[in-house]
Amino acid sequence: MFTFETVVRLQHTDAAGLIFYSRVFDFAHAAYEAFLDEIGNPLPTALAAHPVVLPIAHATADYRAPLRLNDPLQIELWVETVSTRSFELRYRFLKEDGTLAAGVRTIHVAVDSESGHSTRLPDRLAEALRARQARGT
Amino acid sequence: MFTFETVVRLQHTDAAGLIFYSRVFDFAHAAYEAFLDEIGNPLPTALAAHPVVLPIAHATADYRAPLRLNDPLQIELWVETVSTRSFELRYRFLKEDGTLAAGVRTIHVAVDSESGHSTRLPDRLAEALRARQARGT
Amino acid sequence: MFTFETVVRLQHTDAAGLIFYSRVFDFAHAAYEAFLDEIGNPLPTALAAHPVVLPIAHATADYRAPLRLNDPLQIELWVETVSTRSFELRYRFLKEDGTLAAGVRTIHVAVDSESGHSTRLPDRLAEALRARQARGT
Amino acid sequence: MFTFETVVRLQHTDAAGLIFYSRVFDFAHAAYEAFLDEIGNPLPTALAAHPVVLPIAHATADYRAPLRLNDPLQIELWVETVSTRSFELRYRFLKEDGTLAAGVRTIHVAVDSESGHSTRLPDRLAEALRARQARGT
Repeated sequence: MFTFETVVRLQHTDAAGLIFYSRVFDFAHAAYEAFLDEIGNPLPTALAAHPVVLPIAHATADYRAPLRLNDPLQIELWVETVSTRSFELRYRFLKEDGTLAAGVRTIHVAVDSESGHSTRLPDRLAEALRARQARGT
Repeated sequence: MFTFETVVRLQHTDAAGLIFYSRVFDFAHAAYEAFLDEIGNPLPTALAAHPVVLPIAHATADYRAPLRLNDPLQIELWVETVSTRSFELRYRFLKEDGTLAAGVRTIHVAVDSESGHSTRLPDRLAEALRARQARGT
Repeated sequence: MFTFETVVRLQHTDAAGLIFYSRVFDFAHAAYEAFLDEIGNPLPTALAAHPVVLPIAHATADYRAPLRLNDPLQIELWVETVSTRSFELRYRFLKEDGTLAAGVRTIHVAVDSESGHSTRLPDRLAEALRARQARGT
Repeated sequence: MFTFETVVRLQHTDAAGLIFYSRVFDFAHAAYEAFLDEIGNPLPTALAAHPVVLPIAHATADYRAPLRLNDPLQIELWVETVSTRSFELRYRFLKEDGTLAAGVRTIHVAVDSESGHSTRLPDRLAEALRARQARGT
């Protein structure tokens, strides 16, 4: 299981004293990028010039327990499905005591950056994702 | 139909040249707050001290068309359901030419800020939401 | 004087109940982009491919009065100086009662996006900035 | 010297392909909070209810070298001055090869959260800051 550790900082909270709801998507994406680094497929730095981009087509969050300033967070990320042209990731946000604070899903689709149309996942990425999926991550 | 107008600015974009995915949730929440203002139930400024808070329990976004720097956006917001202890809002993000760029759902639950437990929606808010729902907004 | 109106929303606040300090820079940049639109020099949408980019070399904020959730803000923006290769903007953040909440300065430099070196401001932009500066904006 | 390590992620970049300027203030504040944790004075979680708050009165950033997606960052933080009612922190943002990417200054003032007036820094915090300052951090 790939895990990513972070802490809820002031900039993630709001005047209700808890984390602002969209910040869990920011945290999930940071975890996703660290995961891509680990599987040897980091986001290309010249993304806008890259032939294939991987925009998110669908994102969901379920909020289960309040997250507050200074809360350490462990984010578990795994590959739920890998298709020819898309993949789905799942994330569990765990507090220090193991409480599930939030669950997130993101569906990423491969898009040809010239035409704007859906395309096949790059082979190297698809293989790396399937290898992690087979390992249960 | 309640509508909220905004523009995609540099801070909402990322190195892929499009809007960063979690920014649609930021826009949706700004629209929600403007809607609360309009129905006479603005978010209280001393939220952390308020007896009832309305955290989001579930949030979903479907991304349909790319949003780029300088794109004007019209966000339509309507009340989908109002229950005793929660309500659901829907949002449609429309580009200038009427293209649907994204759809968002948020489910808000009433929570007693002392006990942390689910509670009834404040009457005034529930009535205002039902009135808008009846009007088809 | 160019003015830009906005409202402090939940996403701009933090658990101290006030606006998070870096949000004034986000607001200032949104005002700057609206100003560029007005003077007929909007930020190009394909920024990463543009020959001249205008990164910020220096930014300062002075915080004078607290900004809270729901506070309407009027941001006044003017051109302080225009040089061959850079320009400086100033911003005043005014609350509804006219109180000065914050002052911001940003210095923008023209950079050749190929070489990464400083270059001349595009003529059209320099003229538009000087015209506004002459008008006292 | 207190150091804080992070990585530029997609959410920190913009359509120009570089880090969005206000994100350095977000990074600086995360470093500041990690520093407060280390010196035994973490930001209180119930900030809005705390007798003394420490808003930022002044913030400055100088941008020296471009920061791009995936750039690892080392942020060095030190206490520049400690006064009766305020303190100043400095931050240097270093890239992997030691290049200075940005310098930041923040001035924090102690404010009585009831009256909204300036007050003395809490003794424990002032002592911890002076101890670090004496060590050259």
